[in-house]
Amino acid sequence: MNIIDGGVTAPKGFTAAGEASGLKKNGKKDIAVVASVDTAVAAGVFTTNVVKGHSLQVTMENIKNGYANAIVINSGNANACVGEEGYKDAKEMADLTAKLLQCEPENVLVGSTGVIGMRLNMPAVRSGIRTACTRLSEEGGHDAEEAIMTTDTIAKEIAVEFELQDETVRIGGMAKGSGMIHPNMATMIGVITTDANISRGLLDKTLKQVVKHTFNRVSVDGDTSVCDMVLMLANGEANNAGIVKEDAEFEKFKKALEFVCTYLARLIAKDGEGATKLIEILVNGALDEEDAYKAVNAVAKSPLVKTAIFGEDANWGRILTAVGYSGAEFDPNLVDIFIGDLMVCRNGVALNFDEDKAKKILKEREIKITINLKKGNYSDRIWTCDFSYDYVKINGSYRT
Amino acid sequence: MNIIDGGVTAPKGFTAAGEASGLKKNGKKDIAVVASVDTAVAAGVFTTNVVKGHSLQVTMENIKNGYANAIVINSGNANACVGEEGYKDAKEMADLTAKLLQCEPENVLVGSTGVIGMRLNMPAVRSGIRTACTRLSEEGGHDAEEAIMTTDTIAKEIAVEFELQDETVRIGGMAKGSGMIHPNMATMIGVITTDANISRGLLDKTLKQVVKHTFNRVSVDGDTSVCDMVLMLANGEANNAGIVKEDAEFEKFKKALEFVCTYLARLIAKDGEGATKLIEILVNGALDEEDAYKAVNAVAKSPLVKTAIFGEDANWGRILTAVGYSGAEFDPNLVDIFIGDLMVCRNGVALNFDEDKAKKILKEREIKITINLKKGNYSDRIWTCDFSYDYVKINGSYRT
Repeated sequence: MNIIDGGVTAPKGFTAAGEASGLKKNGKKDIAVVASVDTAVAAGVFTTNVVKGHSLQVTMENIKNGYANAIVINSGNANACVGEEGYKDAKEMADLTAKLLQCEPENVLVGSTGVIGMRLNMPAVRSGIRTACTRLSEEGGHDAEEAIMTTDTIAKEIAVEFELQDETVRIGGMAKGSGMIHPNMATMIGVITTDANISRGLLDKTLKQVVKHTFNRVSVDGDTSVCDMVLMLANGEANNAGIVKEDAEFEKFKKALEFVCTYLARLIAKDGEGATKLIEILVNGALDEEDAYKAVNAVAKSPLVKTAIFGEDANWGRILTAVGYSGAEFDPNLVDIFIGDLMVCRNGVALNFDEDKAKKILKEREIKITINLKKGNYSDRIWTCDFSYDYVKINGSYRT
Repeated sequence: MNIIDGGVTAPKGFTAAGEASGLKKNGKKDIAVVASVDTAVAAGVFTTNVVKGHSLQVTMENIKNGYANAIVINSGNANACVGEEGYKDAKEMADLTAKLLQCEPENVLVGSTGVIGMRLNMPAVRSGIRTACTRLSEEGGHDAEEAIMTTDTIAKEIAVEFELQDETVRIGGMAKGSGMIHPNMATMIGVITTDANISRGLLDKTLKQVVKHTFNRVSVDGDTSVCDMVLMLANGEANNAGIVKEDAEFEKFKKALEFVCTYLARLIAKDGEGATKLIEILVNGALDEEDAYKAVNAVAKSPLVKTAIFGEDANWGRILTAVGYSGAEFDPNLVDIFIGDLMVCRNGVALNFDEDKAKKILKEREIKITINLKKGNYSDRIWTCDFSYDYVKINGSYRT
């Protein structure tokens, strides 16, 4: 498997565009369209929030048939909590895109991200979609990525190519998200494309499996949003024979998809609002899968852990404390904690560790924290980031 | 019922002292002793964290007999996660205090608050306890309060007096806590004294009931700690006949206790690390008690809600979003949200509210947010605070 240039338009038969329609106050791009040359099989994973954005609702309906030709996404407005009009607006976004691209309206998927509770400026959206649809190109992947960004500071794109059933196939992806991020998927949108030929059922299954341990293991602030989705289109343009069973070739495909999703998920954590550090929290030795998740989740969400790491302070007591209230079953007298490769707590008791070494580890841009519960055989992992002054700044004035 | 001067030494037969032994780097008071003239009935409520501080473990054992003569508390060091030595040190604190006050060691309760994972400086602690025990006085309540403070910026004390069974009785209280605060009781210590004559069983019952809706409804950062406790002593010095059943007099006592605990709990939220505003979150119309708690808890913990309020931004979408991922059962299309008395969302849909009025409400030091789920008849309430730059500053460098 090789990393290649580009993002969602790296796979054959995909075009994209990103336009500025005026939804964003700063005049940046805000309408993205990604299209496949032919109808693709489609899969999606959606927010678990009870409140769901109107665009997301339309997409959940449209994806039911398992096929799609295009995805249209606006940033700058979440199109959520505005009543029936919001649903109609999302429908219109799909209808207009379908008309321009000459496909069925139910084969267009819609996404929105931004402020909640404000109606979409539909004249702007319409004009943005019209322009985008005329400018679709195989070089348009990056523009589409730019158009889905909100408080993101770095573009999140990647593409890989690998051999599958004796053909070269590609998977490309883009994502946005830097605040209101938490398992499971908060204010994050991911779009994955591939020219592999794969069955609907297996595409759906592998996407759900992979998302669980990648996009759904990113936490910025513990808040999950109402507009989050990962969508994937597979158009078969690579002409491989077709992945129809869970054989070795399927596993190869899954590995490549995992690589793409892991790359994008880590970038989201790294680009967390105000973040200065990417933190990987790893819990080993939990009694079961649920306990592993509870423990890793509590540590990743703890503002006290996140501010300590921002301050480069090896305050491991806060890590143990978070595991303590996580609800996971464990014996505090067995717990080992590592900051990087430095053991700071053995069997629940403080070690007289080298503070200078700890400081050096905490000065890095990427920090790994490992917690061994020594109770069972289950592990889990979350990527998160530190909590800085800038997080407060960005979120104290997002809407105004 | 009247508010009177003082705190834990306002009830008859209680003395206290607070001394500086050198545990705190800044040389402030760090050893508190509160003593009753005679053996009092005692009740306590303790952290739900699986990890428990050593001093708290000793107190949980000592309180089992239902009686106590004194409470000794140090700040500056949590006496947690240091192994067997920590347990021995806590025992020694109780033993030494008992020896000096001539009571049974198991009738002394011990508390510690501060940094986790460092052994107590016992020479300092011993000398602090010795000095405190010689300086116990009826005017010592405020000194004791000072000695339990850590990052607290305001002293938290109150006392009330009221008629009970034809006698004047008093309840006094002090508390500490401003970070690592979350239901159920994180890095918070409360000490309540009363000269009322009340049975062990009823003291225990009423304390647990009252704490549930007062101290256990305060959230600063969602982190619960390993050292938290509310202890209560009742020494009967007021000479009322004795509260032995749940009659009208018992209810009077409970009301007064509720007043004291509510006052202290609100002060803890108001003094949250870096807080500029006290926020009261109220959820009405939940389907059951658990859902009401889930909803109110998710909103109170949301860093996005808390930073928006710091920024005085009426971003109610974040409030609805938090309810959405809380796990509570509700219909988004029924939800009303108020900021102060201003309705900002009706039936899940944005209202075109007066932004100037919202701004004015959000400029206040105390802000009430009401969420009506209109699904059932259960309510719950949490006091919390906003998330500011200073929260990050305080917690980025607490240990170092």
